[in-house]
Amino acid sequence: MIAEIISIGDELLIGQVINTNASRIAQQLHDIGISVRHIRAIPDDSQEIRSALDEAFARAEVILVTGGLGPTKDDITKHTLCEYFGSSLIFHEPSHALIKKLFASRGLEETELNRKQAEIPDNCTPLLNHHGTAPGLWFEKEGKILVSLPGVPYEMEAMMQQDVLPRLSIRGNDQVVAHKTVLTQGIGESFLTVMIREWEDNLPPHVKLAYLPQPGIVRLRLTAFADTREKAMEEIDRQIETLRGLIPDMIFGFGNDTLEEIAGRMLKEKKLTVCTAESCTGGYLAHLITSVPGASEYFLGSVVAYANQAKIDLLGVSDVTLKQHGAVSEATVKAMAEGALKRFGADYALAVSGVAGPDGGTPEKPVGTVWIALAAPGKTEAQKFRFGEHRGRNIRRATLSALNMLRLAVLDSR
Amino acid sequence: MIAEIISIGDELLIGQVINTNASRIAQQLHDIGISVRHIRAIPDDSQEIRSALDEAFARAEVILVTGGLGPTKDDITKHTLCEYFGSSLIFHEPSHALIKKLFASRGLEETELNRKQAEIPDNCTPLLNHHGTAPGLWFEKEGKILVSLPGVPYEMEAMMQQDVLPRLSIRGNDQVVAHKTVLTQGIGESFLTVMIREWEDNLPPHVKLAYLPQPGIVRLRLTAFADTREKAMEEIDRQIETLRGLIPDMIFGFGNDTLEEIAGRMLKEKKLTVCTAESCTGGYLAHLITSVPGASEYFLGSVVAYANQAKIDLLGVSDVTLKQHGAVSEATVKAMAEGALKRFGADYALAVSGVAGPDGGTPEKPVGTVWIALAAPGKTEAQKFRFGEHRGRNIRRATLSALNMLRLAVLDSR
Repeated sequence: MIAEIISIGDELLIGQVINTNASRIAQQLHDIGISVRHIRAIPDDSQEIRSALDEAFARAEVILVTGGLGPTKDDITKHTLCEYFGSSLIFHEPSHALIKKLFASRGLEETELNRKQAEIPDNCTPLLNHHGTAPGLWFEKEGKILVSLPGVPYEMEAMMQQDVLPRLSIRGNDQVVAHKTVLTQGIGESFLTVMIREWEDNLPPHVKLAYLPQPGIVRLRLTAFADTREKAMEEIDRQIETLRGLIPDMIFGFGNDTLEEIAGRMLKEKKLTVCTAESCTGGYLAHLITSVPGASEYFLGSVVAYANQAKIDLLGVSDVTLKQHGAVSEATVKAMAEGALKRFGADYALAVSGVAGPDGGTPEKPVGTVWIALAAPGKTEAQKFRFGEHRGRNIRRATLSALNMLRLAVLDSR
Repeated sequence: MIAEIISIGDELLIGQVINTNASRIAQQLHDIGISVRHIRAIPDDSQEIRSALDEAFARAEVILVTGGLGPTKDDITKHTLCEYFGSSLIFHEPSHALIKKLFASRGLEETELNRKQAEIPDNCTPLLNHHGTAPGLWFEKEGKILVSLPGVPYEMEAMMQQDVLPRLSIRGNDQVVAHKTVLTQGIGESFLTVMIREWEDNLPPHVKLAYLPQPGIVRLRLTAFADTREKAMEEIDRQIETLRGLIPDMIFGFGNDTLEEIAGRMLKEKKLTVCTAESCTGGYLAHLITSVPGASEYFLGSVVAYANQAKIDLLGVSDVTLKQHGAVSEATVKAMAEGALKRFGADYALAVSGVAGPDGGTPEKPVGTVWIALAAPGKTEAQKFRFGEHRGRNIRRATLSALNMLRLAVLDSR
């Protein structure tokens, strides 16, 4: 089945909102074997919506529309769909019950505008919204399907999981394609491609490779085509085994794995704990670790010692070390890690100190210079990195490098 | 001028990469008065690329293409454009010099694949890439413009700033439209719309309003049309003055302002400092504060006291308080704030303790319950919030609410 995604909203075309919905829907359709060939963003304009619907019905069998279902005046999708499908509005009591419940759970009364959101076109199947006020709308026309979903990402997400994907899955599908993405940390795209060139050149024609670089991480997406999904996955796994022999330390996970999840899972399995001491990463390392549900089982805490006095008072770094070596140095970052290890009583402590930029660089320690230390009882190691000039990317790359140091250490432990 | 953005890459259609480039380009074109009417994502397939180019040339005057210019095999954009515009490849020495320089700055030798990236179509104007290896390509055909840019966001961004926007700006423009976005914190969309309904209903026809909600923040975008940009902006500013009278405390900024920037700027101006003590936000509050360049002038640090023992050891919360009231309580969060204030010697300390979820909720303190305290010497206040069920959004909403408490306190100070 071929699908098309139409995202409606002026805010997308003036760049005020990033279209995360389209990516998420594309990913979910892809996972059940439906190929998205086009994603479009169009304005809140009924003429543009109608043209986009005509074009989509001409080339796709499933059309997913998001946006424009809100309670406010600028939301015109529902009325435009009514005209397009020749519908009248009827009041949908189950949707209204959910709207009232949502308001009650926040201790509030529903507004008249929200009550109107329970009105739906009479020739569609409504999809219940358990997380917001606008129901989804499922239309069918000449064997093709159009689904209109709210633009609020978590409302859309819940409706996809609960209704749209289960209903679409049972429609069957003739195309069998499988993907797997290998995640690598610590090497740039150009160097990686040279290291794995021979393997890449020898891939069979029904297996494709794509490089997806991000700051600090290069993802390798393998795509295979076969009679069955199982055969396609087998082929991919065979290729990945060969790849793993070429770059064993760099592969940290697959698909949507993150370094913080992988490292966290390993700590949990081995019943080990970690804490962090952060200067230039400013709490981002602790944030990534704690973004994983259940992180409290292995994460004890962090000292973000941004000011030098905090490095002395809260981590016990000596005044002399700071004066002699500076905050961005092997001696300081090791002292930070050891100080955190002791104060939190953890099995591991990660410490990061560097020049994130844009200011603070010197000829000896230019912007992008970062020291990372990993301390365990009786053993502290430190590594120097040289990242780029961009503050946000330096923070991100330093954090990922620290997590990878932790991952490799936990992998080797016991 | 009407523009269209074409984003090329299979990774966009299987939802592996979010199309941030299209949003950013749309925003930048919009700012110089160029209207983007369509954004499309299409696969790495030369037939699809050619069809998309035909359709775009039929309805737009400026076409921005991103992606597919990398050094690896799956990058086919340059060769497809060569066929489309009937070009031959020639070697571009200035681009090659930049490639060599980039590798040298990292202490590396260029690879043969990267050297080939300096080959450009002979009938385009190359745009130098100072941050990566693929030059941009500027084509003109029958008075229309096509620009092909790399898909790596910061390379694209630099090329837009340095070459594309300056060149497009001087092409002139007949449509005059202005936008301004008002940022509000602390009230949901449905309640806000009721509070400002009369104002909204009385907006003149040449002024439009759109609601752009996000977890914790509702943005109101005002759009005005006029003979000149100045007149349109004047009209918008007049409307915002009226709006400000209706919701004075909720408006924290405009456009791309962030609460962390606004609060940071105010602290800097008043020469005040802040520190944080975080439990459920896990370092995200410190991270947002330190994501602002120059934050070291007013941010001293944070204690992320995830484990209860860390609340005792590092923040001086008493064992008795924790036992009697629990970690998520007014007494604990106030003690955390006061402990941080003392240890960092700051003018303000923000503390956050709550149940981020998905686990840890109880009937008395369900997931989403969050206490936030703000301490200043001699004065500590605390507020209880009830957010939702989603871990990531609870962390984000708690952090934004804390920043807004800080902003209002600094605003009132002295």
